Amino acid sequence: MSDAAPAATLHSYWRSSCSWRVRLALRLKGVPYSYEAVPLAHGAQHAAPFRALNPAAQVPVLRIDGVTLRQSVAILEYLEETRPAPPLLPRVPAERAHVRAIVEAVNAGTQPLQNLAVLEYVKGRWGDEERLAFARHWIEEGLRVVEALLKDSAGECCVGDDVSFADLLLVPQVYNAERVAVDMESFPTVVRVVRHLERIPAFVDAHADRQPDAPMSQT
Amino acid sequence: MSDAAPAATLHSYWRSSCSWRVRLALRLKGVPYSYEAVPLAHGAQHAAPFRALNPAAQVPVLRIDGVTLRQSVAILEYLEETRPAPPLLPRVPAERAHVRAIVEAVNAGTQPLQNLAVLEYVKGRWGDEERLAFARHWIEEGLRVVEALLKDSAGECCVGDDVSFADLLLVPQVYNAERVAVDMESFPTVVRVVRHLERIPAFVDAHADRQPDAPMSQT
Repeated sequence: MSDAAPAATLHSYWRSSCSWRVRLALRLKGVPYSYEAVPLAHGAQHAAPFRALNPAAQVPVLRIDGVTLRQSVAILEYLEETRPAPPLLPRVPAERAHVRAIVEAVNAGTQPLQNLAVLEYVKGRWGDEERLAFARHWIEEGLRVVEALLKDSAGECCVGDDVSFADLLLVPQVYNAERVAVDMESFPTVVRVVRHLERIPAFVDAHADRQPDAPMSQT
Repeated sequence: MSDAAPAATLHSYWRSSCSWRVRLALRLKGVPYSYEAVPLAHGAQHAAPFRALNPAAQVPVLRIDGVTLRQSVAILEYLEETRPAPPLLPRVPAERAHVRAIVEAVNAGTQPLQNLAVLEYVKGRWGDEERLAFARHWIEEGLRVVEALLKDSAGECCVGDDVSFADLLLVPQVYNAERVAVDMESFPTVVRVVRHLERIPAFVDAHADRQPDAPMSQT
């Protein structure tokens, strides 16, 4: 973080994997921001002030450059277009497409099936054991796809040795997988890449447990 | 379609909403392509030849420019980068972000919760009535978000009067909504935009019912 006044406000929840993606992009690109906690556990996302920012009642919301942005992947693309350095996408279109394929395998292929609202629905209708089985099943399906995509491209990171959007999506997803005790031994490339990424300072700072609204926050 | 030899091969299924998005982009940009049907109803996506193209066993796959591309939104971005005319994203970053927010509200917020694999899981565990209730519930939740996002931006199309990625996502999603009898009266902006889009020739040609593998295909 620089000493300049924050250029942006991020409406975030510590354990929201979609908020986490945006925290990573802001830190990697060195964009100062102020952190506005939205306590999802208390339903704050449904209150009128937040709904005025995002009718979807979802975090993250990023207020930056005089505009209000919603949906994490849309926000990542905006930051890449307006703050290209350091790049989080390769230069060659086919490689960019591969990064975005990994992004979508998490963003559309995994995360939506294990987010809070969906798991509450499953729990409310069929009970807590079914909730856990549902989450595990779809995270495993999603990580199987990611593992296969990474086999062709991974170096230290998902695609070669440079951090890209794909890495920003992968780390929070693996955190969620470990929360529901997915057996990660089936996904050796995923695990190897995540262990590398976790040591990068921006990834340390953006971690759920380090956010101001985390219980026992270490910041 | 031009008379030139196809520059691309699209592996598609007639009723796959994600394949439909890519068919629309190819037609709007005038990219000739050959159509390779992947009969999902017979499990062809799980056979070895197709898995070699896409380990996720999902359509669409686009082979173009000597590369193999997966995940529909990644493919749309690739086509926009390599074939910028006519544009399917606005020029201003904040407007591009709004288009992509609508895209994600469908791509991550709606479609994954009503795709074939997920509904088969729900049906297998809890029966066919629950399958239908699940699909309706999440499509309604998703369209509520899309409707709210469109209120600020819609003209004839999702964002102003020019076709964008958002429109390519919306039309197949509304087709799916109507298949499970979602009450569309709650989404008047969505319906108005879709009725406009359906009259555009590229949208007529890319429709599920017009594909070579559709039963009673009208092509």
